[in-house]
Amino acid sequence: TAAANDSAPAASPAAPDAGEDGQWTMPARDHASTRYSRLTEITTANVKDLQLAWTFSTGVLRGHEAAPLVVGSTMYVVTPYPNHLYAIDLAQPGGALKWRYDPKPARAAQGVACCDVVNRGAAYADGKIFFNTLDVQTVAVDAATGKEVWKVQLGDINRGESITMAPLVVKGKVLVGNSGGEFGVRGWLTALDASTGAIAWRAYGTGPDSDVRIGADFQPFYAADREKDLGVKTWSGDQWKVGGATAWGWISYDPRLDLIYYGTSNPGVWNPAQRPGDNKWASSIFARDPDTGMARWAYQWTPHDEHDFDGINENLLLDLPIGGRTRAVLVRPERNGFVYVLDRATGEVLSADPFGPVTWARGIDLKTGRPILNPEKATGNRLARDVCPASPGMKDWQPSAWSPRTRLLYLPHNNLCMDYEGVETGYIAGTPYVGAQVRMYAGPGGHRGVFAAWDPVARRKVWEIKEKFPAWSGTVVTAGDVVFYGTMDRWFKAVDARTGALLWQFRTGSGIIGQPITYRGPDGKQYVAVLAGVGGWAGAAALGLQPEVDPHIALGFADAMKDLPQHTPQGGMLYVFALPDRGGTR
Amino acid sequence: TAAANDSAPAASPAAPDAGEDGQWTMPARDHASTRYSRLTEITTANVKDLQLAWTFSTGVLRGHEAAPLVVGSTMYVVTPYPNHLYAIDLAQPGGALKWRYDPKPARAAQGVACCDVVNRGAAYADGKIFFNTLDVQTVAVDAATGKEVWKVQLGDINRGESITMAPLVVKGKVLVGNSGGEFGVRGWLTALDASTGAIAWRAYGTGPDSDVRIGADFQPFYAADREKDLGVKTWSGDQWKVGGATAWGWISYDPRLDLIYYGTSNPGVWNPAQRPGDNKWASSIFARDPDTGMARWAYQWTPHDEHDFDGINENLLLDLPIGGRTRAVLVRPERNGFVYVLDRATGEVLSADPFGPVTWARGIDLKTGRPILNPEKATGNRLARDVCPASPGMKDWQPSAWSPRTRLLYLPHNNLCMDYEGVETGYIAGTPYVGAQVRMYAGPGGHRGVFAAWDPVARRKVWEIKEKFPAWSGTVVTAGDVVFYGTMDRWFKAVDARTGALLWQFRTGSGIIGQPITYRGPDGKQYVAVLAGVGGWAGAAALGLQPEVDPHIALGFADAMKDLPQHTPQGGMLYVFALPDRGGTR
Ligand SMILES: O=C(O)c1cc(C(=O)O)c2c(n1)C(=O)C(=O)c1cc(C(=O)O)[nH]c1-2
Ligand SMILES: O=C(O)c1cc(C(=O)O)c2c(n1)C(=O)C(=O)c1cc(C(=O)O)[nH]c1-2
Repeated sequence: TAAANDSAPAASPAAPDAGEDGQWTMPARDHASTRYSRLTEITTANVKDLQLAWTFSTGVLRGHEAAPLVVGSTMYVVTPYPNHLYAIDLAQPGGALKWRYDPKPARAAQGVACCDVVNRGAAYADGKIFFNTLDVQTVAVDAATGKEVWKVQLGDINRGESITMAPLVVKGKVLVGNSGGEFGVRGWLTALDASTGAIAWRAYGTGPDSDVRIGADFQPFYAADREKDLGVKTWSGDQWKVGGATAWGWISYDPRLDLIYYGTSNPGVWNPAQRPGDNKWASSIFARDPDTGMARWAYQWTPHDEHDFDGINENLLLDLPIGGRTRAVLVRPERNGFVYVLDRATGEVLSADPFGPVTWARGIDLKTGRPILNPEKATGNRLARDVCPASPGMKDWQPSAWSPRTRLLYLPHNNLCMDYEGVETGYIAGTPYVGAQVRMYAGPGGHRGVFAAWDPVARRKVWEIKEKFPAWSGTVVTAGDVVFYGTMDRWFKAVDARTGALLWQFRTGSGIIGQPITYRGPDGKQYVAVLAGVGGWAGAAALGLQPEVDPHIALGFADAMKDLPQHTPQGGMLYVFALPDRGGTR
Repeated sequence: TAAANDSAPAASPAAPDAGEDGQWTMPARDHASTRYSRLTEITTANVKDLQLAWTFSTGVLRGHEAAPLVVGSTMYVVTPYPNHLYAIDLAQPGGALKWRYDPKPARAAQGVACCDVVNRGAAYADGKIFFNTLDVQTVAVDAATGKEVWKVQLGDINRGESITMAPLVVKGKVLVGNSGGEFGVRGWLTALDASTGAIAWRAYGTGPDSDVRIGADFQPFYAADREKDLGVKTWSGDQWKVGGATAWGWISYDPRLDLIYYGTSNPGVWNPAQRPGDNKWASSIFARDPDTGMARWAYQWTPHDEHDFDGINENLLLDLPIGGRTRAVLVRPERNGFVYVLDRATGEVLSADPFGPVTWARGIDLKTGRPILNPEKATGNRLARDVCPASPGMKDWQPSAWSPRTRLLYLPHNNLCMDYEGVETGYIAGTPYVGAQVRMYAGPGGHRGVFAAWDPVARRKVWEIKEKFPAWSGTVVTAGDVVFYGTMDRWFKAVDARTGALLWQFRTGSGIIGQPITYRGPDGKQYVAVLAGVGGWAGAAALGLQPEVDPHIALGFADAMKDLPQHTPQGGMLYVFALPDRGGTR
C-alpha cells in the first residue's frame, strides 16, 4: 500500500514526524507508538555516569503507570486517583511546581477499579493537556495556566465503568476508552471534539453493527468476520450487553492510511461457560476512520477468550521487510503470548510467534487467523492447570519500544502460568462480574518477569534479561542505543540496546511500573524521567491485600507476588536523571 | 565542676565518646546532642559533587521528622503513623529492605495528634531498636531480626495522650515522654527497663512534689523555685491535673554529672486567664538522676506562659569558656526567642540573648531567671497584636547542631509573629483544649524561616540564611565543615559551616522537615541521609487543611503557610547521598 523506507532512521515513516525537538507530547511519544527518541547525548558509553538531577513527589501512594509529558519547558504529570495534574517548570532549578489541577473525581470510583486506581498518562495538543479521571470523565486543561477548558462525563461508575487509559489526540479529536471488563460493562471508544469536549462518535465493542460502527466500508481480512451483527450473534442472548470489550489500552494512528488502531478487553464474564460463542468483538483489534469512527477492519486475537486475554496492548506501526518486500505492518506483542505482525491496511496476520512459554494454544492458523486451541486448557466450568501465560498474559499493558537503528522491539513482559477454573456467577450492576478462581505462579525458570529484545522480521528473541518480578513498566529506547526500563523491586535500569548488557542502574524509593521518557531540557541537556510507585494489578500484594487470607484475591495475582512487600514500599515519586554537570550548585 | 577541655576536637568532653565509627545510633548522634560528625570525606571543596546514591520510599505521606539510624551495616527508619520500622541492608546495592516491623497503632490515635502524626525517630542500644508509637506505646524490636522484644502501653489516647518524641536510652533505661499539651493531658517522663519494658519510674510535669519526683536532692538555682509543691500551688484549683507540661521533645545526658536534661511543654489551657499563677512545671527544664528520676534542679523558661512557648527544645551539653573559665554548660535555643546558656550542674542562667525579633519580653533578668515581660503582649482574655515570636517560637522542635571546630551552633528556625487572643473554653477529655484564637504571619523581613550560625560565647549571630518557609528540619555539621539542612520548599542544602555560603543543593520530592544524618557505609564511604516528606505543625497547609475556610485552623499556622502547597506535594522518601564513584553500576 503506502510507500515505505525501511532503512531510514526515522521512528516510522508512517508516523507524523515527532521531530528532534526533544519534547514528549504523548505517552507513546509518536502516533506510531515507537517510544523511540532520537536524542543522542546519553550513550552506551556515558550512561554509567547518569545521576539524579531532581525528584518530585506526587503525594499519592498507589500504582504510578503514567508517562510524564514534556511540552516546551514544562513537564506534566498525572497521578493515579485522585488524578492530580502537575505542571512543573523545567526552566527553574530542580523543577519548580507551576500549578496543580485537581479534577476532584468521585471517591466511589476507587471501588470499580479492577486493578488499582491507576492512570496511564495525559496527551498534549493545541495548547491543552487532555487526560481521563477514574470516575469516567475526560478533562481538557489549559497547558499554560492550568485552568479547566472543559470536562465531560462519559460513563457511570455505578455501572462499573472507570477510565485508566491515556487518551490519544488525532485530527482534533480526543480518543478515550472505558474500563470495566471485570464489572460486566459494555466497552466503547469515544471521540471528543478537542476544543469543546462534545462527543463526535462512540463505537461499542459489542452489540449490533450500528453500535459497533460497522458499515459499508468494513472489510476484515478473514471471511468469517464479515457477517452482519457478529457483536450480537456470537453471544448467547443478551450477554453482549454485559460483555466487556472495553478499550482501556493503547491507540495508534497511521496518517497515511488515516486509520486508528486499538484493541478491546476480555469478554464479560470470565467464566467462558456462561458465554458460548466467539464473543465478538472482545479480545480484538479495530482499525477505524478517526473522523467517523467507522470500522475499516477488525480481527479477534482470542475468540471466546477463556483466560482473560484482553487484547488492548500497544500496536507499533512499522514498515518492515516481510517476504521480500517492505510492508506497512502493525506489530502487536499480544497478551495471549504471540507477537503478531499484521498488514495494517487489511488486518491480514503475516506472522504470529510465541515470545515465551504458551500452553493454551499450539499456534495461530494463518489461514483463518484463529488460534489452534489446546483443549486441556479450556476453563469453562472446569479447572485447567498449567495454563501459560496466566491471565495478565505474556505481556499486559506495559508498552514496548522500537528502535529503527537496531530494528528490535524492546519488550517488558511476564513469565507467569496459572490454574484457572470458571465458576457460575450472576451479574449485579457495579460489582465485580468474574466467575473464575485463579491461582498464578511463576512460569518455567521460576522468574516472573522478562525484559527482552525481539526481532519481528526474523521472528525471534535476540536477548533477554530475567527479572524476579513481572517487568511491569514501560520502556524507552534512544538513538544512543540505550534502553531504559524499571523493575518492581526498585531498579531503574539502562541496558545496551544491541546486547542487553546492564550499563547502569539506580535504586528508586518504590517499585517502578511507570513509563520512562527522555527529553531535551531548556538547558539543552538530555534528561530521562520516570515515575516510581508500585501498584497496578501486579502490585496488588504491595497495596496491603493479603493473599495469605485468600489466594484468589486480586484475581489470583497477589498470591503470586506474596514476596513483593519485602522488596518495595509504596510511594509515588518522579525521578529525573541527567549526565553530570561540571559540578556546582544545580 | 567537671574537668573541661574546650579546645579538644571532640563533640563534647561531656558526651560519651560516640567514636569515629561512622554510626548514628540516636537522633542527636550523641548524648550531648551535638549532631556533629567527625567524618571528613565530604568537605567544603568536594560537596559540590555530591550525588544521590539511592532512595527508599516510606509508603507514608504525612510529615517525616525522624532521623534515620545507622548501626553496623543496617539503617533503621521509623515512619510517621502508622509507625512502621524499616531495616535496610546497607551492604546490598541500593539499600535492600531487610524487614519491616509494624506495631499496628490504634487508628484513633490520629485524632489526638496536635501537630500531624509525626515521629522523631528511634534509638539503638544493646541489640535493640526502641521507638514510640502515636498511640502511646513504646516498643523494643530486635535490631537483627525485626522481632518484637516487648511493647508497653504508657498512656491513653482517650485522655488525649499521644507520643511523637524519640526515646533516649541511658544506663539501661529507655526514657519516654508523652504529648498532649493541646488536649489538657498531664505530662510525664517515664523510664522503662530496656530489657523488659517494665516501668522504672515516672515523673510528672505538674502536681505534688512526690509525683514530680522532687525530693531532698532538689536544688534549683533560683530561691523562688525551692518552695514545696509548686506543681500544685502555682495553679488555681485542680487546673494542674489538665495542665500540660508534657515531654514531647529532646533529652540529653551528661555521664559525668550523671544527669538527664529535658523540657516540658506549654501549660494547659492556652488561654492564660484560665490558669493564674506560674503554672509550674510547664515550659520548664528538669535535670534528673536517670536511675531514680529524682529532680536535681529545675528552671522555668516561661512562667505563666501566655503564648504557647513549650520548653521542650534540644539541650546541647558543651564545655565553653565563660567569664574567663571553662564551664560545663547547657545551651538551649529556646522557643521563647532566647538562646540560654545554663550552668548544667546548677541550673544557673549564665546568659540569655534573643536570636531574632522578640516583643513579648524585654529580656531575661539573670538575678531571678525570670523574663521581663512586655505587658502589651499579654493574652489572657484579650487580643495581643504583633507578638514575636509566634506560638511555634523562634525555634520549635527542629534540633540544632554544634561544631567543636567552628565553635558555632547551627540553628534552623522561624521568623513568625502573631496576634493572639485567649478565649474561654472548657475541658472535655480527649478533645482539643486550647481556648485561643491565633493568627500568624511572617516576622520582620517577610521571610518565614532562618538558618543561622550562633556563637554562644560571643552571644551573637555569625551568619544567617533567610528561607521563604520556616526552617523546620534538623541539621548536621561535619568535621569537613559542611552543614546540611532541608527546606520546606524541597531543597536539601549543604552550606559552609564558617561562612554560610551555599555549596550544593538538591531538589527533593517533598519538603524536608526530617533530621539529616551522615554515616560511613560498609564500603567505607561517607554518606548523608535525610527523610523528605512535608508536614508537622508548620506543614499543616500541605496536608489539605484549608485556611481559606478558617484562618485559625491548625492553631493559626496553616494561614501563615497558605502558599506552601504551591511549593511542595506530600510524600515520604529517604534520600541517601555520596560523592561519586569512579562510574559504573552502583
Ligand atoms: O477489562 C478491563 O476493563 C480492564 C481494565 C484494566 C484497567 O483499567 O486498569 C485492566 C484490565 N482490564 C486487565 O485485564 C489487566 O490485566 C490490567 C492490569 C492493569 C494494571 O494497571 O496493572 N489494569 C488492568
Ligand atoms: O504540647 C504538646 O504536647 C505538643 C506536642 C507536639 C507533638 O507531639 O508533636 C507539638 C507541640 N506540643 C507543639 O507545641 C508544637 O509546636 C509542635 C510542633 C510539632 C511538629 O511536629 O511540627 N509538634 C508539636
